Amino acid sequence: MTTRDSQAPDSAEAPVREASSTFRPVAAGMEAHLNVYHPLLDHGFIAVKDYMGDDLSVLQMARMSYGKGTKGTSNDRALLRYLLRHLHTSPFEGCVIKLHVKLPIFVMRQWVRHRTASLNEVSARYSILPDEFYLPDPSLLAVQSTDSKQGRGETLAPDRAAEVLRLMTEDARHNFATYHRLLNADDEGRTVDAAADGLARELARIGLPLSTYTQMYWQTNLHNLMHFLRLRADPHAQWEIRVYAEKILEIMKDWVPVTHEAFCDYQLEAARLSRMEVGLVKALLAGRATMADATSFGLSEREAREFAQRFGL
Amino acid sequence: MTTRDSQAPDSAEAPVREASSTFRPVAAGMEAHLNVYHPLLDHGFIAVKDYMGDDLSVLQMARMSYGKGTKGTSNDRALLRYLLRHLHTSPFEGCVIKLHVKLPIFVMRQWVRHRTASLNEVSARYSILPDEFYLPDPSLLAVQSTDSKQGRGETLAPDRAAEVLRLMTEDARHNFATYHRLLNADDEGRTVDAAADGLARELARIGLPLSTYTQMYWQTNLHNLMHFLRLRADPHAQWEIRVYAEKILEIMKDWVPVTHEAFCDYQLEAARLSRMEVGLVKALLAGRATMADATSFGLSEREAREFAQRFGL
Amino acid sequence: MTTRDSQAPDSAEAPVREASSTFRPVAAGMEAHLNVYHPLLDHGFIAVKDYMGDDLSVLQMARMSYGKGTKGTSNDRALLRYLLRHLHTSPFEGCVIKLHVKLPIFVMRQWVRHRTASLNEVSARYSILPDEFYLPDPSLLAVQSTDSKQGRGETLAPDRAAEVLRLMTEDARHNFATYHRLLNADDEGRTVDAAADGLARELARIGLPLSTYTQMYWQTNLHNLMHFLRLRADPHAQWEIRVYAEKILEIMKDWVPVTHEAFCDYQLEAARLSRMEVGLVKALLAGRATMADATSFGLSEREAREFAQRFGL
Amino acid sequence: MTTRDSQAPDSAEAPVREASSTFRPVAAGMEAHLNVYHPLLDHGFIAVKDYMGDDLSVLQMARMSYGKGTKGTSNDRALLRYLLRHLHTSPFEGCVIKLHVKLPIFVMRQWVRHRTASLNEVSARYSILPDEFYLPDPSLLAVQSTDSKQGRGETLAPDRAAEVLRLMTEDARHNFATYHRLLNADDEGRTVDAAADGLARELARIGLPLSTYTQMYWQTNLHNLMHFLRLRADPHAQWEIRVYAEKILEIMKDWVPVTHEAFCDYQLEAARLSRMEVGLVKALLAGRATMADATSFGLSEREAREFAQRFGL
Repeated sequence: MTTRDSQAPDSAEAPVREASSTFRPVAAGMEAHLNVYHPLLDHGFIAVKDYMGDDLSVLQMARMSYGKGTKGTSNDRALLRYLLRHLHTSPFEGCVIKLHVKLPIFVMRQWVRHRTASLNEVSARYSILPDEFYLPDPSLLAVQSTDSKQGRGETLAPDRAAEVLRLMTEDARHNFATYHRLLNADDEGRTVDAAADGLARELARIGLPLSTYTQMYWQTNLHNLMHFLRLRADPHAQWEIRVYAEKILEIMKDWVPVTHEAFCDYQLEAARLSRMEVGLVKALLAGRATMADATSFGLSEREAREFAQRFGL
Repeated sequence: MTTRDSQAPDSAEAPVREASSTFRPVAAGMEAHLNVYHPLLDHGFIAVKDYMGDDLSVLQMARMSYGKGTKGTSNDRALLRYLLRHLHTSPFEGCVIKLHVKLPIFVMRQWVRHRTASLNEVSARYSILPDEFYLPDPSLLAVQSTDSKQGRGETLAPDRAAEVLRLMTEDARHNFATYHRLLNADDEGRTVDAAADGLARELARIGLPLSTYTQMYWQTNLHNLMHFLRLRADPHAQWEIRVYAEKILEIMKDWVPVTHEAFCDYQLEAARLSRMEVGLVKALLAGRATMADATSFGLSEREAREFAQRFGL
Repeated sequence: MTTRDSQAPDSAEAPVREASSTFRPVAAGMEAHLNVYHPLLDHGFIAVKDYMGDDLSVLQMARMSYGKGTKGTSNDRALLRYLLRHLHTSPFEGCVIKLHVKLPIFVMRQWVRHRTASLNEVSARYSILPDEFYLPDPSLLAVQSTDSKQGRGETLAPDRAAEVLRLMTEDARHNFATYHRLLNADDEGRTVDAAADGLARELARIGLPLSTYTQMYWQTNLHNLMHFLRLRADPHAQWEIRVYAEKILEIMKDWVPVTHEAFCDYQLEAARLSRMEVGLVKALLAGRATMADATSFGLSEREAREFAQRFGL
Repeated sequence: MTTRDSQAPDSAEAPVREASSTFRPVAAGMEAHLNVYHPLLDHGFIAVKDYMGDDLSVLQMARMSYGKGTKGTSNDRALLRYLLRHLHTSPFEGCVIKLHVKLPIFVMRQWVRHRTASLNEVSARYSILPDEFYLPDPSLLAVQSTDSKQGRGETLAPDRAAEVLRLMTEDARHNFATYHRLLNADDEGRTVDAAADGLARELARIGLPLSTYTQMYWQTNLHNLMHFLRLRADPHAQWEIRVYAEKILEIMKDWVPVTHEAFCDYQLEAARLSRMEVGLVKALLAGRATMADATSFGLSEREAREFAQRFGL
């Protein structure tokens, strides 16, 4: 066995990509992404390390189930859209993606909530973490949102933004300086003061900030990836994880273009109407009601407001 | 999109395999298996339809976690064996296999107990099942095992075996004949009696025997595959599923040879000693006890018997 | 330890229920279901054997996450409905139900597709299965549906229905008779012919029909239960599994009434509009389009037809 | 619905426990733990909030599978030990535990790697985190272990330990002070400087250290709990998570005493012998070899050393 490098290449280098011959399904659009490191945030990245399957693999799985009936009658694109529309999700599990991701720890903590995935993360018990932490761009610094109880509202005034950034930077730098004093080691693990003991890595790291960058290999199937994207490419997700989700959405478009289009049409940009909203729409379309009647159909005030907004009323 | 055939090829045909170029890791031994249909039992088969990763992919995942420390010091084979020995299982999740399997329904019912896998099965609500059912080879017909409460004991006498096979064959054939009478359709779905109604497929199939063949696509990662193999390539597993597990074990050897060897050494052919057995071994090795003392170390009579057997005492 | 009976009580008996004192949350409506066997189909049943949590447990999990913000401002019912509406599903995992279910094997085979659950099923390798198989009521015997490619259409004419039932009954009885001839054992496991060998149970059972009854303990959390109910209490599910799903839906109503109401409003009776349908609804409500324009908004012919039907146009 | 408090009670208070009547199985030893907050580390705790099942529930699940055969012949304790010894794990999934845990974020990050569990964690996007961070006891401060590449070796000298603690304390305090300056809010969320904007919570928290305490509800079944305990009550686990695992192990003993004993005997204190070690043990017991021959049986030098140590040779 000859070792393949598992670390991100120096950004100056071209991606390490050796072509081989395979009898497996190949997704041309995805091949172009392999081992290409897409930079994200100030020090992060995403790179596709491996994948399995394509749009046709989904259909192959589906046609196994539905048999001859689905062969003649419907073309490929129509069947694939039918599957997503009707939430026949198991055929999408036949496609798999493996990503190398570098991301701040607070983003990682949101990411791991998606349990149906495989992951391996850098261990700070074994390794010394490099001095890399996330600093938001000043344009992203905002006050607490007043209407959603989470998320961000108005952007901070430039003076306050500058002060905030200065405080963040100073603290993170200070934490990393302390980290090395505790370890009694520099970035390369070399002892600094030969007379002093270094603290064990698993303890020295507990003072590092949540903005510290970590790395992982993350692998999931297309069904669970779409679930991840529904939640994390959503405006309610924290901006810093949304950046990753949106890059993955782009990659998905190159990997499985027909599934991507159907996913946008039937899930990402779809709307769900409650029983009460279905009743309201029926009445509105029949001319039996106006939006002023919304609450009499069982919608709460808030639901009525959101409904009106969504449908431009 | 151009449809790829999802059905097993006619046995007379050569496997459908088109070579493409890829930047992904390629496992040479596995490429040779792609779309090759290995016959099993009387009408079953297994074929590899797709895979992801190889021995080096496991190491790449592991080295991501353990960092520089694992780079210089240990060679690839040693690290891979270390991982399996110490049950560091997550790096093995980075390899995935997708199989096309044709198998009797009673085997399928054991197979689906392994939940961490993706599967798509032929639906007998959509399709008419072909007239194929499993008949054991006469040499496999045996009485109930007396010591294990499950499984088989002595082989039946030839006369009784012949009678058993005759009964099995007649019944299964009769069930399939009734199936077509209920459907009012032949194998190809053509109406038999234009004047009669056919029963819905989802109801007509409920009289088919558990020996009826079904098909599925089954996909799992290498970690879960090894768990499957530990349970199903085991002598306690029913012979008919063991046949499938053993074929997969052969395929695994061609796919990830180093992992396969480590899996045999540290798991398949390993033994687990209870706290009591550890105490007994210590005492035996120190010459402080003989097997006659086994129960005084806390082993039950049965455990003592099995221990003696395993260690040739 | 004193053994608790794991088998279904004789229907003539009262449920075995001993009251104990507990500090755990108690759902009064669910207590009334404990160990009560609800008969289903001709020989099946469902009984609640254990449960954990109630509506308030869901809120307790949610309030842990959202903190003080959710305490004063919203009342319990509103918060619970908010959670389901916005697919904040993890708090619902805090409630668990354990059911004892007796069901035909072909229903079991659909049921096990729900992987995020725990189950233990009767093993026909260890035990002799009782002579019980499912026979549909004549009113349920129908032709294959022409529009859905699965499912049932028109009911069979009485003569044909009678013939179908007769064939089904004869075959199943015959299969069970053969089963006992192969086993050389009666229902109680007593040898029939002392001079003949009985075939091992794991082989004798392979000729039994898919309509044979089996039993299982099945346990899942409330989040996954609702997913099960969305798919199996749906008109597209086979009638025989829907019967079970609908009984569970009734039990759920007694267990977690507020969650049940929200589940019906926001999921079971909700509609999902695709991106194209959202565009169409907007235009219809603004008077900028009529249903005749549906396909110009990107709906397929079939989608347009289904849309019109759903909204009474 | 009347809200139940989801927060940890003030330590001065008695646990909130109201007795109710239930028809469910009750584990007396576990009732005593309900809502009792066990303090751990300097600010952490574990409390049992709910549970389902007991030792007998495991047997009930198992007897469902194995049928009458297991009824008369074996007593309860023997059957339960048999199940664990032979890795028949599914019956253990029938028991569930729900814990309220307060723990440092770096411990949480190890904990969430156990994916087959349900959890809800405090969100620092919604709430302001209290000023609580973990400081190790001086006796725990140690150098990096030299033999395991992870973990701790010799304890630090008192002077160095004091310096390390001072640095850790100063930094964490400073980070929390900055947190409040960024938020422009005190612990209670009250604005500090009316003229200044507060930064959104989701951004202000990214500078907090990994030692910051968080809280979660964590729920898993007994099978997965034992897997968690095997890995986290192990000497290779970081001391700070082991403290939690050992407390859970104590709770488990009160909950399911027979399972706990079997778990210790057959898993926690068991040994696994590789194929090579089995060969060596056989030879040693037969007097055909001595430890000097270990590597000729295929053990690596390291494996031979560890083997000798384990068996006192």
